[in-house]
Amino acid sequence: MRENLIMIKEKFTQKNIGKFNFRIEENSSFFQLFSNTRIRQGQLNIRGKIAKTPLFMPVATRGTVRALTPSQLKEIGFEMILSNTYHLHERPGEEVINKLGGLHKFMNWDGLILTDSGGYQVFSLSNYRRVTDDGVVFRSILDGKEIFFTPEKVLEIQKKLNSDVAIFLDECPEYPCNAKREEESLKRTIKFAERSIKVEKNPGQLFFGVVQGGMNFKLRQECAQALLSLGVDGLAIGGLSIGEEPSLTKEVLLATLEVIPPGKPRYLMGVGSDILEYIKMGIDMFDSVFPTRIARHGSAILYNKGRINISNKRFKEDESPLDRNCDCYTCRNFSRAYLRHLFVCDELLGKTLLSIHNLTVLYKTVRALNS
Amino acid sequence: MRENLIMIKEKFTQKNIGKFNFRIEENSSFFQLFSNTRIRQGQLNIRGKIAKTPLFMPVATRGTVRALTPSQLKEIGFEMILSNTYHLHERPGEEVINKLGGLHKFMNWDGLILTDSGGYQVFSLSNYRRVTDDGVVFRSILDGKEIFFTPEKVLEIQKKLNSDVAIFLDECPEYPCNAKREEESLKRTIKFAERSIKVEKNPGQLFFGVVQGGMNFKLRQECAQALLSLGVDGLAIGGLSIGEEPSLTKEVLLATLEVIPPGKPRYLMGVGSDILEYIKMGIDMFDSVFPTRIARHGSAILYNKGRINISNKRFKEDESPLDRNCDCYTCRNFSRAYLRHLFVCDELLGKTLLSIHNLTVLYKTVRALNS
Repeated sequence: MRENLIMIKEKFTQKNIGKFNFRIEENSSFFQLFSNTRIRQGQLNIRGKIAKTPLFMPVATRGTVRALTPSQLKEIGFEMILSNTYHLHERPGEEVINKLGGLHKFMNWDGLILTDSGGYQVFSLSNYRRVTDDGVVFRSILDGKEIFFTPEKVLEIQKKLNSDVAIFLDECPEYPCNAKREEESLKRTIKFAERSIKVEKNPGQLFFGVVQGGMNFKLRQECAQALLSLGVDGLAIGGLSIGEEPSLTKEVLLATLEVIPPGKPRYLMGVGSDILEYIKMGIDMFDSVFPTRIARHGSAILYNKGRINISNKRFKEDESPLDRNCDCYTCRNFSRAYLRHLFVCDELLGKTLLSIHNLTVLYKTVRALNS
Repeated sequence: MRENLIMIKEKFTQKNIGKFNFRIEENSSFFQLFSNTRIRQGQLNIRGKIAKTPLFMPVATRGTVRALTPSQLKEIGFEMILSNTYHLHERPGEEVINKLGGLHKFMNWDGLILTDSGGYQVFSLSNYRRVTDDGVVFRSILDGKEIFFTPEKVLEIQKKLNSDVAIFLDECPEYPCNAKREEESLKRTIKFAERSIKVEKNPGQLFFGVVQGGMNFKLRQECAQALLSLGVDGLAIGGLSIGEEPSLTKEVLLATLEVIPPGKPRYLMGVGSDILEYIKMGIDMFDSVFPTRIARHGSAILYNKGRINISNKRFKEDESPLDRNCDCYTCRNFSRAYLRHLFVCDELLGKTLLSIHNLTVLYKTVRALNS
């Protein structure tokens, strides 16, 4: 039953073929790892809602993808978004959202929602933290009060939010760190997972475990296998793109993917660049604040030519759209000159319009691989 | 021909009848001034575009109604907006907008646009100014450089923007001021108008003169009559609601309206409260930053019960919409609890959603009188 929820279809792609030609049978459990062309086409089918993969999830940190209405997200085409457990726990609190009917209703999003575990925020936002085998103690970024997160607690929060995919608590070792630290945090992540899997899911909800293990291939594989043996619905791959060289990211990722069977979705956490590279390696799911964050600072992503900063004076009288290849609301209706004007005047509409554009580029780029 | 552009239909209203019952014939040029029920139903028909009156214009100060897309404004129902000549002159400059095809195309608004003269901004924003019979010298609020506005100059700017209704330069005396100042500024406003009327309009564009005269009934009437004799297309009534008692505003207004024939639209500049009162006196057009400005600070206008500040703790778990009588996008889709959450977290979406709601209330309240 659990396997039926996630239908992953492997597809042979003649295009962009690498050094080795190879063919993968549909629904095969065999993977070749020496090519860069293993693009997976699949779909998540959760609670009757479908999201085709590969997919990119816009980030609704506090229950809103900043500066956009849910209608605008729908118009772009998104089927799934991510929201942050830690932030929602702080404000307005999971109890409030639960009383109001869950996160979907609260934020008026009828597509799929993945919530993270809050673990990453504990490690990235809080100066003070103490990790034990019981859980994590840290200080609120809002008022400094102590918060205690356990594997069970973060799942209870996510159950109250009633997200469609909930993520286990993990420990993300900093980069660089020594072998002992890598191993310790890995062990803790697995122990946390063993406790997490015992939590009863909400009906139809999926549980993803988080693969850690630093930059150590063996630990990464060990972690993935441990999570798989626990019966997780999918694997979130964490602790990458946190300062290491991109080439190392890719090596660690390839090693990790080697042990993941095709029926399991693979979600690369928090990575918003080089997405096509990772899709070619076999990643299904992405999230990143990157496209919306840079949009709010006036940076527009072009389909094939990097980025432009729209505040630049050279766009003052430029009547062309941000990207001639784009058919988003922004590019259909507004010139670069107008968008520049909005940013020069610090008008909120600029943030909205560039966010629509950047998210459209991410959406279309990823979605083109399964359309 | 000019008269045909503006069709004003007087309507007898049995409801809310005041001290005296009276009947006004359709298309009559005769007005009774002793009742408070002279609601006018009409329409502006400019360049093939229609805006029914009475109407409220949202303010797009810098070519954008803050935090809203043109689509969102259209969805509410607006047919006409206002934009500020002074702000657009500063940034991006009328030359840029003209090169890009005019303000409609620049901001992607296919409805009607009224531009003000910039006169009010000169008086309200600039600390330094010198008014002579030639024009106004003042300092830019951006970089302090001297700007010289003449009656001809502000119309040339508005012609370059190619707004549908352009406003003459006027001098707005501060309140309170003495009789000499009232008279001087009135004379100057009329002199400015005499020069303004000689400027050739863009095809189909209307020119409105501004009625000044402080709080002096006689001067107000004199000004209106002088403008009418010059052949203006409509009358903008300025210099009211600038600190005086509301009862005085109404008296001055009634005296002014007494001399304006029914075929001329009457636009009460910058007034966003007590609108129904003014409509009952015979005002056709309004603009105000009020509904959007308070929206961005979390204040929501209710149809019948004043305002609420959505950040208030009492809305923390309130699952009802802002106003049960409202069918705007915000009220159809979001709870007070969610909106409060957005404001508590300083999320941009909150500003957008409350702006949609407040503008909808203004739109519907005014539009209900001609639907």
